[in-house]
Amino acid sequence: MNTHLQLDERGRLRHLLTLEGLPREHLLELLDRAESFAGAGDNRSKKHPLLHGRTVVNLFFEPSTRTRTTFEIAAKRLSADVINLQVDASSTSKGETLLDTLKTLEAMQVDLFVVRHQASGAAHFFAAHAGPGVAVLNAGDGRHAHPTQALLDVFTIRRHRPDFRKLTVAIVGDVLHSRVARSDIHALHTFGVREIRVVAPRTLIPAGIETLGVRVCHTLQAGLTGADIVMLLRLQKERMVGAFLPSTAEFHRDFGLTAERLAKLAPEALLMHPGPINRGVEIGGELAYGAPSLILEQVSHGIAVRMAAMAMIIHDRNPVAKGRRTR
Amino acid sequence: MNTHLQLDERGRLRHLLTLEGLPREHLLELLDRAESFAGAGDNRSKKHPLLHGRTVVNLFFEPSTRTRTTFEIAAKRLSADVINLQVDASSTSKGETLLDTLKTLEAMQVDLFVVRHQASGAAHFFAAHAGPGVAVLNAGDGRHAHPTQALLDVFTIRRHRPDFRKLTVAIVGDVLHSRVARSDIHALHTFGVREIRVVAPRTLIPAGIETLGVRVCHTLQAGLTGADIVMLLRLQKERMVGAFLPSTAEFHRDFGLTAERLAKLAPEALLMHPGPINRGVEIGGELAYGAPSLILEQVSHGIAVRMAAMAMIIHDRNPVAKGRRTR
Amino acid sequence: MNTHLQLDERGRLRHLLTLEGLPREHLLELLDRAESFAGAGDNRSKKHPLLHGRTVVNLFFEPSTRTRTTFEIAAKRLSADVINLQVDASSTSKGETLLDTLKTLEAMQVDLFVVRHQASGAAHFFAAHAGPGVAVLNAGDGRHAHPTQALLDVFTIRRHRPDFRKLTVAIVGDVLHSRVARSDIHALHTFGVREIRVVAPRTLIPAGIETLGVRVCHTLQAGLTGADIVMLLRLQKERMVGAFLPSTAEFHRDFGLTAERLAKLAPEALLMHPGPINRGVEIGGELAYGAPSLILEQVSHGIAVRMAAMAMIIHDRNPVAKGRRTR
Repeated sequence: MNTHLQLDERGRLRHLLTLEGLPREHLLELLDRAESFAGAGDNRSKKHPLLHGRTVVNLFFEPSTRTRTTFEIAAKRLSADVINLQVDASSTSKGETLLDTLKTLEAMQVDLFVVRHQASGAAHFFAAHAGPGVAVLNAGDGRHAHPTQALLDVFTIRRHRPDFRKLTVAIVGDVLHSRVARSDIHALHTFGVREIRVVAPRTLIPAGIETLGVRVCHTLQAGLTGADIVMLLRLQKERMVGAFLPSTAEFHRDFGLTAERLAKLAPEALLMHPGPINRGVEIGGELAYGAPSLILEQVSHGIAVRMAAMAMIIHDRNPVAKGRRTR
Repeated sequence: MNTHLQLDERGRLRHLLTLEGLPREHLLELLDRAESFAGAGDNRSKKHPLLHGRTVVNLFFEPSTRTRTTFEIAAKRLSADVINLQVDASSTSKGETLLDTLKTLEAMQVDLFVVRHQASGAAHFFAAHAGPGVAVLNAGDGRHAHPTQALLDVFTIRRHRPDFRKLTVAIVGDVLHSRVARSDIHALHTFGVREIRVVAPRTLIPAGIETLGVRVCHTLQAGLTGADIVMLLRLQKERMVGAFLPSTAEFHRDFGLTAERLAKLAPEALLMHPGPINRGVEIGGELAYGAPSLILEQVSHGIAVRMAAMAMIIHDRNPVAKGRRTR
Repeated sequence: MNTHLQLDERGRLRHLLTLEGLPREHLLELLDRAESFAGAGDNRSKKHPLLHGRTVVNLFFEPSTRTRTTFEIAAKRLSADVINLQVDASSTSKGETLLDTLKTLEAMQVDLFVVRHQASGAAHFFAAHAGPGVAVLNAGDGRHAHPTQALLDVFTIRRHRPDFRKLTVAIVGDVLHSRVARSDIHALHTFGVREIRVVAPRTLIPAGIETLGVRVCHTLQAGLTGADIVMLLRLQKERMVGAFLPSTAEFHRDFGLTAERLAKLAPEALLMHPGPINRGVEIGGELAYGAPSLILEQVSHGIAVRMAAMAMIIHDRNPVAKGRRTR
């Protein structure tokens, strides 16, 4: 997919679709901008007037209450008007119908589409067809990308281990189906981490993943030893058993992270998970909260990072939205 | 139904239920007011403070994400608080239960109900029972009326062909089930168009439609020749086949509009459709966007027209809502 | 359950979970605060800036469009950002999963959770685990408590019969399953009413209810004679028939309140019902509106009371939310 679709002719961020190929300075700007929002929770008002009068549509073809909520909160804290649309993907499977949905909402002068879709490339499709005044933010497309999740992950890492070049990061779990893993790998490489490992049984590692510059490990011991950051992936239990795994119990036995294992294999490592966690599957419940877990910080930073992304692609580019026409 | 229910004792618009019998000056005022909102999309803020502090309830007994979204956007751009209520009509089929729903929400000091219901007359029922400080806007009731759709249609026509008295308008498709067709016919007559034609197979033309002052045509050729405006109606595929039509393919063969047919029969005509379109049924996909199609303009004007209607029936009539009491 | 969980170390209202054990001065403060909001409907704007920038989550594990709407309207009139979350309780039945839901949303800097759950004690569970900057408001938990309903009931009574010590109150209907009845009994005792009666067939009276200081009556005649206030409870028809009642018709025959019965047994009494009413079951439809029914006033006061509760537990306690941290 054309990764430059997301930059405008002057090189500024126009859509946020993927972190693959996104220049380091854009990532840095996003993280720095997020810092300005992340502190605001301590003060009385978390509210910013940046997107007052703007309309944000959460266009979810795949249900995800949790992710939708983070974008809804982020947009409302920027004073935007927010419309939630849960669309049954089965009724809009054709590209033409997707296009009709996009063009119709665009005609209502929507400023930003936050798009989640089970098909890889859906957000790119929207961005490729969006009118000049309309921005697209990818909230997860198939197995492809989930850029705001990876942004919040590197934001969280930077707060604790700011020197990325010294880091070894282990990504553990269902790498095969994970857009989060792909986006994290791109972001971590952009910041120059020393080593990225993917850790999973053979059935959950996509063929050719080494071309992304990662080392493949098939045991927790090999994957975690010497790791500074352990990023767990959520196991989609219902999709896994039978086809990819004998059972979730077996997965937990071999790849589930417990406090004991973490203490033994990587006692200095920080622990991350995109949530929601499956206790007793990929993670022992005792690891959910408190050091070395950064899980709740990730959630909190997710709001700040999404505010930063929205503010950059709507506000900065279109300060007065001149020349915007509906025809 | 009493068409004067929607005017107050001083003749001002109090509810918007139907365009049948609504005086021309009210329609003109609505369109002119909509013009003031239609331009606002070019500027930075689309937001107006007119309904700040007012509460608008979208009360939908029939699901329609698209129509609900247009009213939600319109109300939010007027700074109202908006509550979406999707009510299962089967649980509120009795008039008493409808009345309980109305009175309960009214007691919460709702200012405006946007009502959609599958039963003709539902919005009138609400208006007849509404308290003095409460306005009702019909967002479609059964086969009866859909006034804001017709308003946006005449608004769109006026922008391109302002002299209504010279126009021949052809309304093509499922006239039998269409509240849009009925409301359009009333609006077009109010503005004095030269001729209105309804164009459909016999099974989709209601008996006695000629009494509304329209000419019935049973072929596209007869209907479109000399037409200035072609308004397509959406075919409710699931309701049609078997009972009213042999197949949608047959409908498309005889009444579906394609670029080729339009160029041949009415090369100067502008094309309209209330959306969402059924590509390959009532319309060829190549006609969706770009001249001579006004479809996306209609969507855009729909927001402006709904803002105008809401502002008129809430704001103008009740500038300070004096004397409003909850008992 | 620990009723003091809802007060902070300085004795101020921190959460609103139950009226059991809540000191009289807190109830009075809530009612007086609600008075300040109840008058606002007469003026142009019903909007208050108190919770501007605050985030309120309606977290409903049990569907209730009506109750959710009242909290949504109340929060929006206080200028809060409101997020509605309807959670399938079956997927979050374990305490750990509830805790994950709470901690995750808390990390998004939510200020207030309005919680409805079918399990008694759910709101207490949330309050016991909530972080220092987060307040919990019980919108109904199992058979346990529904404090804002009872508050609006005593608010409504006070407007008409301010001297509680002279009152005899009859609570009629399904006392067994009713959290409303329990909360009303606590509130009425706190204000020192002379006598509380519960009136129902034996199958709908919980064992040992007398320990709450009420008199049990098994006929309408015994229950209503001399009553100043008659509070009807909603019969959950689907849960009742077979297990607890031979039929709703039989219930109506023996315990349904009609205008005729009320006029005969308690001609001076005022009538209340938490809604929505079941016409022809616990109430004759002719009693729905107009004197002596206070039903619509209750609805209206429900908004004011919920605004007061929200304002007290969020705004007053945390004027600048100092020291609030997400870790």
